[in-house]
Amino acid sequence: MQTFDLVVMGSGPAGQRAAVQAAKLGKRVAVVERRRDMGGVCINTGTIPSKTLREAVLDLSGLRQRELYGSAYRGKDEITVQDLFMRTNAVMTRERDVIKAQLQRNGVKLLGGSASFAGPHEVAIEDGDTRQSVGGEHILIAVGTTPGLPAGIEVDHRHVLTSDDVLSMPRLPRQLTVIGAGIIGVEYATIFAALGIEVTLMDKRTELLDMVDRELVDVLTVQARRMNVTLRLGEEVATLEVGSEDRVVVQMKSGKRLATEMVLVSAGRQGMTAGLGLEKAGLSADDRGRIQVNAHFQTTVPHIYAAGDVIGFPALASTSAEQGRLAACHMFGVPAESVPALFPFGIYAIPEVAWVGRNEAELTREGVPFETGVARYEEIARGQILGDPDGMLKLIFHLDTQKILGVWVLGTQATELVHVGQAVMALGGTLEYFIRTVFNYPTLGECYKVAALDGYNKLRDLSRVARTIPAAAPAAAGGTTPAV
Amino acid sequence: MQTFDLVVMGSGPAGQRAAVQAAKLGKRVAVVERRRDMGGVCINTGTIPSKTLREAVLDLSGLRQRELYGSAYRGKDEITVQDLFMRTNAVMTRERDVIKAQLQRNGVKLLGGSASFAGPHEVAIEDGDTRQSVGGEHILIAVGTTPGLPAGIEVDHRHVLTSDDVLSMPRLPRQLTVIGAGIIGVEYATIFAALGIEVTLMDKRTELLDMVDRELVDVLTVQARRMNVTLRLGEEVATLEVGSEDRVVVQMKSGKRLATEMVLVSAGRQGMTAGLGLEKAGLSADDRGRIQVNAHFQTTVPHIYAAGDVIGFPALASTSAEQGRLAACHMFGVPAESVPALFPFGIYAIPEVAWVGRNEAELTREGVPFETGVARYEEIARGQILGDPDGMLKLIFHLDTQKILGVWVLGTQATELVHVGQAVMALGGTLEYFIRTVFNYPTLGECYKVAALDGYNKLRDLSRVARTIPAAAPAAAGGTTPAV
Repeated sequence: MQTFDLVVMGSGPAGQRAAVQAAKLGKRVAVVERRRDMGGVCINTGTIPSKTLREAVLDLSGLRQRELYGSAYRGKDEITVQDLFMRTNAVMTRERDVIKAQLQRNGVKLLGGSASFAGPHEVAIEDGDTRQSVGGEHILIAVGTTPGLPAGIEVDHRHVLTSDDVLSMPRLPRQLTVIGAGIIGVEYATIFAALGIEVTLMDKRTELLDMVDRELVDVLTVQARRMNVTLRLGEEVATLEVGSEDRVVVQMKSGKRLATEMVLVSAGRQGMTAGLGLEKAGLSADDRGRIQVNAHFQTTVPHIYAAGDVIGFPALASTSAEQGRLAACHMFGVPAESVPALFPFGIYAIPEVAWVGRNEAELTREGVPFETGVARYEEIARGQILGDPDGMLKLIFHLDTQKILGVWVLGTQATELVHVGQAVMALGGTLEYFIRTVFNYPTLGECYKVAALDGYNKLRDLSRVARTIPAAAPAAAGGTTPAV
Repeated sequence: MQTFDLVVMGSGPAGQRAAVQAAKLGKRVAVVERRRDMGGVCINTGTIPSKTLREAVLDLSGLRQRELYGSAYRGKDEITVQDLFMRTNAVMTRERDVIKAQLQRNGVKLLGGSASFAGPHEVAIEDGDTRQSVGGEHILIAVGTTPGLPAGIEVDHRHVLTSDDVLSMPRLPRQLTVIGAGIIGVEYATIFAALGIEVTLMDKRTELLDMVDRELVDVLTVQARRMNVTLRLGEEVATLEVGSEDRVVVQMKSGKRLATEMVLVSAGRQGMTAGLGLEKAGLSADDRGRIQVNAHFQTTVPHIYAAGDVIGFPALASTSAEQGRLAACHMFGVPAESVPALFPFGIYAIPEVAWVGRNEAELTREGVPFETGVARYEEIARGQILGDPDGMLKLIFHLDTQKILGVWVLGTQATELVHVGQAVMALGGTLEYFIRTVFNYPTLGECYKVAALDGYNKLRDLSRVARTIPAAAPAAAGGTTPAV
């Protein structure tokens, strides 16, 4: 039996990054992947396809241009599934090649087949009729997730789909009901709405995206409705039935009924741990198939680690990759740390939403005194040029120290823009930084300055401002009087 | 005669920001503008029109999509001047409204007409037949520039244009010769080339864009040639002659001749000081019409300031606005400072180029030991999704301290991306920041991490690395071993 310092189950962002990190530390590493292709859900059915689809929709629908060329503007008259996914396949192929090349370059052994535990240090790999075992001093479970299905819902991949089916969608429906308004549900609901599809978005929860600052959720909701998305919150599905004429009837527990052409179920995801033989390694998963780990990503069996979507929140490619890196460092005794409180988050809906740090409600609950400064894209030249008048950037800062507590962005390039605020937060900057900084013109980056000046003007209006500002912003005391 | 604390000549970025700053300080301010519209060259013929044109070209030509949809992809079959400028006019109108509203909201008096000095504290304003005078305790010259014309060249606004004529271009030519390969020349040459126009770009200098890091200029040059731009460097124009069939014959001093449909002259700009009556205020301009100022933007007459393009380099809207703000603060005794060494720069060519800090050649001349880390857009998922494989980001950092000395970006969103590096530089971050930070996935922001890891790997290969890294990057000494 061949043995390795590390055997990784799964080649998504967590597994991949852990493997490369361990290889860079001089370890012998194997990655077991059951799919034909590398990259996990991220590359093959999740992140990359949905983000590429989103870009294709923005290009082909002409939505980006409607503000400036008029509401009748469309980029392409008849948009087909083929138009949308041509690009997706090209991007996926290249991403897979990049990952494969990176793993090979670092001497990581790639093993095709389904992995399961044969013992605490032994992984069985089944590939069709062949079966082999490898030994691992350490093992990383990075098997990811699979769509969860609420009771009463069956998927036929034709009328009722999960997010894993979107790429092989048979046609574009005229109507789509999205069940589950988490991040994935909101992303797909708004992306398909942008194509002119009549979308209904349902969730049993009464609030959309409860981790997001309310002010942004409000804007997102208004924009979704403007694209003809019908929101049905506080509604639970009782049954789904494919009726005559290929229509699906959605029966809600509240008694409402809805006929729709296609249903997309995005009701959370389950850890893909069912066939892993966890018990042979002395491990178990929770009722959603997830594996619990400590701060170092160790399971209850110390030489077995888990990382990525399979351990639950936040289940983002970016954080999963970082978890993989940290797990690999920990298992080989290399101290490593990151700045978890400053992880950025991104929702690739239309509009895009991104943030770093805290939201208003959290800070209010904790009694942290704060003020906000807001810039709207329509106030700045670049917003006009892009034709995105609804975009906005909000800074939340401490009332006394002017330290930045949260950066919230909604609109074009939100997921990129937030990195500027993240750097300022991580390096201890205050509102002052944005006031004193010159940004390229015309860029969306200017929103930071406009928002900071808005916040500063609010501070000035407080009677206590005379005491607060100089103490808090040394550079201001030393001289700068921000203006405009 | 009405008197003001500050009379501003010109309503471009410098004048506008100075006026608002002074108004916020409680001063009585007047702005004199000779054009019918506010905003100067920036809004009316320069920055905003060219950047909006650029965006329209990217949208309508489908250039952005060719990488993924194939080289025959075009967004719109027949692109006319009207298509391109419809959007431009919309944006300009809104920007003018925004500026006007901002000035009025701050109680700034707007005076229409041509300003000139009647004395050191008196400004005459001529508007058609009416003439008035206003007094100013302080006066700011922010009159901007007008295109310069080399000897032997005459502009007829039909066959031979300057950059100020682009907006009123009668038609799109099939061939265009751009004379002058400064920032404006390179921007227009590549924008028109993206439309499929056969462009020749000429300059008497032998190098393009000498302030830009050579590695980026090389990529830009290759990409320009790929769009069928013919570069003619080291060539000076002797004469231009409009021949038969509406063709212009360009005679070069080297003896070469070239027939072209249209010529765009962008041979530098002249300070618009000719009719200002500078002598009545005891001032003078240099041979290019520019006014000299000290570090506080004071002319040789201390109560008269000048800011913006009229004082020369860098002549960017962003820096001009900041100069205006600083001038206003200084004249009213309010201490103010900015971080001039960290001004970001942007060239809105196709591809976009942006930077902050120093280039390799400068640092080499000064004997500063550095190393670089490079990321290519094609290596990261977002680059694939955008279809911009030629984009790149380069970090230049100090070999011993790992402080960031320069950030250079070429490609989609370069002018936005550079703001992340700018924040890290301004707040004293090192290579370590980018290595430890998690970026949203998929974003171009990830280039910072990939570039930092590239740089780190080079350091590791140096024999001295064992000594250097822990000393220089405390967080690394405390623990982190970056990988990948």
